[in-house]
Amino acid sequence: MTTSSPLGLHRVIEPPGVLPQAAWQLDASPAIAPDEVRVRVDRLNLDAASYRQIREAYAGDPGKIRAAVLDIIATRGKMQNPVTGSGGMLTGTVEEAGPSSPLGLKPGQRIATLVSLTLTPLAITGGLSHWDAQSEQVPCEGHAILFARSIAAVLPDDLPIPLSLAVLDVCGAPALTRRVVKQGAVVVIIGAAGKSGSLSAAAARQSGAAKVIGVVPTEAEAQLLRNLPTTQESPLADEIVIADARDPVGLAEKVQAAGGPGDVTVVCVDVAGCEGGAILSTAQGGTVIFFSMATSFSAAALGAEGMAADVTMLVGNGYVPGHAELALELVRTTPSVRRLFDMRTGS
Amino acid sequence: MTTSSPLGLHRVIEPPGVLPQAAWQLDASPAIAPDEVRVRVDRLNLDAASYRQIREAYAGDPGKIRAAVLDIIATRGKMQNPVTGSGGMLTGTVEEAGPSSPLGLKPGQRIATLVSLTLTPLAITGGLSHWDAQSEQVPCEGHAILFARSIAAVLPDDLPIPLSLAVLDVCGAPALTRRVVKQGAVVVIIGAAGKSGSLSAAAARQSGAAKVIGVVPTEAEAQLLRNLPTTQESPLADEIVIADARDPVGLAEKVQAAGGPGDVTVVCVDVAGCEGGAILSTAQGGTVIFFSMATSFSAAALGAEGMAADVTMLVGNGYVPGHAELALELVRTTPSVRRLFDMRTGS
Repeated sequence: MTTSSPLGLHRVIEPPGVLPQAAWQLDASPAIAPDEVRVRVDRLNLDAASYRQIREAYAGDPGKIRAAVLDIIATRGKMQNPVTGSGGMLTGTVEEAGPSSPLGLKPGQRIATLVSLTLTPLAITGGLSHWDAQSEQVPCEGHAILFARSIAAVLPDDLPIPLSLAVLDVCGAPALTRRVVKQGAVVVIIGAAGKSGSLSAAAARQSGAAKVIGVVPTEAEAQLLRNLPTTQESPLADEIVIADARDPVGLAEKVQAAGGPGDVTVVCVDVAGCEGGAILSTAQGGTVIFFSMATSFSAAALGAEGMAADVTMLVGNGYVPGHAELALELVRTTPSVRRLFDMRTGS
Repeated sequence: MTTSSPLGLHRVIEPPGVLPQAAWQLDASPAIAPDEVRVRVDRLNLDAASYRQIREAYAGDPGKIRAAVLDIIATRGKMQNPVTGSGGMLTGTVEEAGPSSPLGLKPGQRIATLVSLTLTPLAITGGLSHWDAQSEQVPCEGHAILFARSIAAVLPDDLPIPLSLAVLDVCGAPALTRRVVKQGAVVVIIGAAGKSGSLSAAAARQSGAAKVIGVVPTEAEAQLLRNLPTTQESPLADEIVIADARDPVGLAEKVQAAGGPGDVTVVCVDVAGCEGGAILSTAQGGTVIFFSMATSFSAAALGAEGMAADVTMLVGNGYVPGHAELALELVRTTPSVRRLFDMRTGS
């Protein structure tokens, strides 16, 4: 390893010249370059789609599931499911930080990676013997490498780890929402009772939104939102709309009746077919932020064109500088969001 | 038909309550609501993917291809290929404009629709007997209905019709580019020798771009760009880069060497796998506009996150107010763009 690349190009074995995420195989050897960090890994959090695929492929047999995951990591030097293409993230402790690493990490710090396992060099020892293979949470021993442009967050001492991980998993959404929402805006959050949705609602409030309209699919979710604690004067959502986000006309009419359309609409539900409803619930000149991985690029582009909708449509980028700190601070300071996360992570 | 909807909801037969694009069947009856316009259709321009699917399904047999298209239109009340889901556009002459139509059209005007055939009520008479079924250009007789929020452009007298249609087909790209590019910006156009790419380059120049870097895949395309006429002092692209846009590292290095990264990068090539290269060719804090329908939403979102790239990523909305007029004006006033379109449309 002569010169290292901030993107990790020097760790790519096969095929040469591609980015680590696109690579078939990475070099996961433990010696670090001056701008790298080595982490002692204690847990993998597999992407849900990846875990499901492996579990189904081996009919739930724990031994075979463990062997399959071990084989992928040993073969590829990273945990990237060859069928789904997806990875997950990990937690661990900083073991060694190179002198020119810009990540600001120190040995002994407990961290979570915010970049995907699909691009993180990883080696496992000990055969995953502590994993029952019944969930995507994989206790393990081994090491991983962070590049200069990898992203990792130090896990805070004052929050339960499952809660912090759940917050970090979606921390791009509130950061981008806060950047886009302007003082006095009407903001529609589709999926307001979910993790990214509730954080985005709190971020919109922090940006000075005049009104937050929370869309949920069921009366049960609406009830959940209504029963949350409120900060001083304002609830998480000023108006709660129960609607099927896949029904553009129905959704837009209900949002309209609740004080819409939105100047900004944030799509936080991982359900296909929400593009039209989001566009139609947004004012001309407004912005739609798509955070759902179920978003169809062509449905969004053609849908807006077909409705002569002059809306700015953003691909929800999971990286915004400072996103982890912002999201953790929101969960600390917003009782309603904290309650939701406590419920959803079983804290 | 009692009350009409600007989006055409009143024309939806099956299933009720959905948008016209999502409908299985539309009501194409010729009587218009006060805010509608009826057009005498003379030509359909089928979406290339749709035409290819039908041609292949019927092994190129002209009689069967004609019958298949007629059957779709008769059954659905619109030309939407049930397999590909796509449509196309049409040209025709305004026959009757309702008194409250906001489109500003007058009987006798020759127009092209800028909304998809997938949401346009359409009826065909005369059996497509003038269509040889050898191309997606379908001479025909019949009528179509425009809603209040449909978009149509009057075909100009001073430009050949094939040229105008080619310009209108991609007119969203230069309009959004002009809106996003700021004075003094470095702009990277991926696919600069193409239709949407060349118009976007001209639009970037009009917005005051300091430097336009045009990316093309081959030396032949580069030569084509170099040989275009220039306006006063500036060529269409200040720098020409020959690179494979699917190779993120290779592309970004060449763009860098040519004066990049871009403050704005515009993706105008309909090739899958260009997301990473576009992101990596863009400066932190910059913007990527994806106009390619081959764009993968998840590849863009995960790619930016994986590279810790703080870039704003826009879904290229085909509708921006004034887009048709802007694009036609660009082709009139930019000799290089005019030459490219003349070559590509055989004028």
